[in-house]
Amino acid sequence: MSKLTKASLKRAFTWFESGPVILVASNDGSMDNVMTISWHMVMDFSPHIAITTGSWNESYESILKTNEAVLCVPDTSMIDTVIKIGTVHGSEVNKFDDFGLNKQKASKVKSPLITDCSACLECKLEEHIEAYGILIFKGIQLWEGNNPKSKLLHANGDGTFFEEGKLLYKREMMRQWIPEGSERL
Amino acid sequence: MSKLTKASLKRAFTWFESGPVILVASNDGSMDNVMTISWHMVMDFSPHIAITTGSWNESYESILKTNEAVLCVPDTSMIDTVIKIGTVHGSEVNKFDDFGLNKQKASKVKSPLITDCSACLECKLEEHIEAYGILIFKGIQLWEGNNPKSKLLHANGDGTFFEEGKLLYKREMMRQWIPEGSERL
Repeated sequence: MSKLTKASLKRAFTWFESGPVILVASNDGSMDNVMTISWHMVMDFSPHIAITTGSWNESYESILKTNEAVLCVPDTSMIDTVIKIGTVHGSEVNKFDDFGLNKQKASKVKSPLITDCSACLECKLEEHIEAYGILIFKGIQLWEGNNPKSKLLHANGDGTFFEEGKLLYKREMMRQWIPEGSERL
Repeated sequence: MSKLTKASLKRAFTWFESGPVILVASNDGSMDNVMTISWHMVMDFSPHIAITTGSWNESYESILKTNEAVLCVPDTSMIDTVIKIGTVHGSEVNKFDDFGLNKQKASKVKSPLITDCSACLECKLEEHIEAYGILIFKGIQLWEGNNPKSKLLHANGDGTFFEEGKLLYKREMMRQWIPEGSERL
């Protein structure tokens, strides 16, 4: 498994904007955990990224305890692992070991990077909107694998998924709206 | 342009879960408006759906005034219209007229349905988290066109988009996690 390397934070939001399934890695001080989630949104280009979850997720407590996490973006080839991570509770198994996930040390947080993924974003927790289970993260360090054009995985929520299809270039129409340094694809 | 027809609210979240670009239609009491947004997330199956925006969007003020909106999901064929809607300010043009959007009357809100889209969700605004520009909507009536398997459009944020590719069925693995009545694809 090749290592992830540091990349510009300016393009971090482009890994999340299209709404792929992501893995959220955390560390509660003694153990790594990971959860699968589709319920996330970009909030600005810095980037701030929100997720919605709740106390049924063991990772939620871990993130609230440590105020950090790593948001990782798997590609389509990881679909079965992504589903297993999302359907087994962290208290029952050590997900990293049982699902053969490869880890790498992050630079600014204690949560691990998942090197099987196409990109990982180290994050600090900036806000917890308890009434709605919303966690607002600020990305602080982006890491990428060796394929910045990976086909990501998207969930429809009804037991079906799709892989990303044909790429459409609209830079001419969008020119003034594209943040400087964000071009990844 | 064929009309949209009412569909079960139980599958409404499946139109949004994968993170497509959406159009948000509103009506400020005198005029319809519409904006393009990728920054949204499903929050539960009822469904609650959050978007992040701000006062730079004329639609934001309209939604706060009326406490309602319609979230519409365009397919890939609408890409140029979607970009134009997203890059022109509502005060400069009447977007519905100028971009040739077709409207249909909603059942529970004053904002219009956009019949060019594959699905539209009538929503009430439930919460406004002002510090972050988050609007939390509760979907109350789903409408669908005649193709529930439309290929939706996704933005990467760097001036590129992609259309949805190969559909992957994982219902066996996901069985106990699929909300009853949500199967659309």
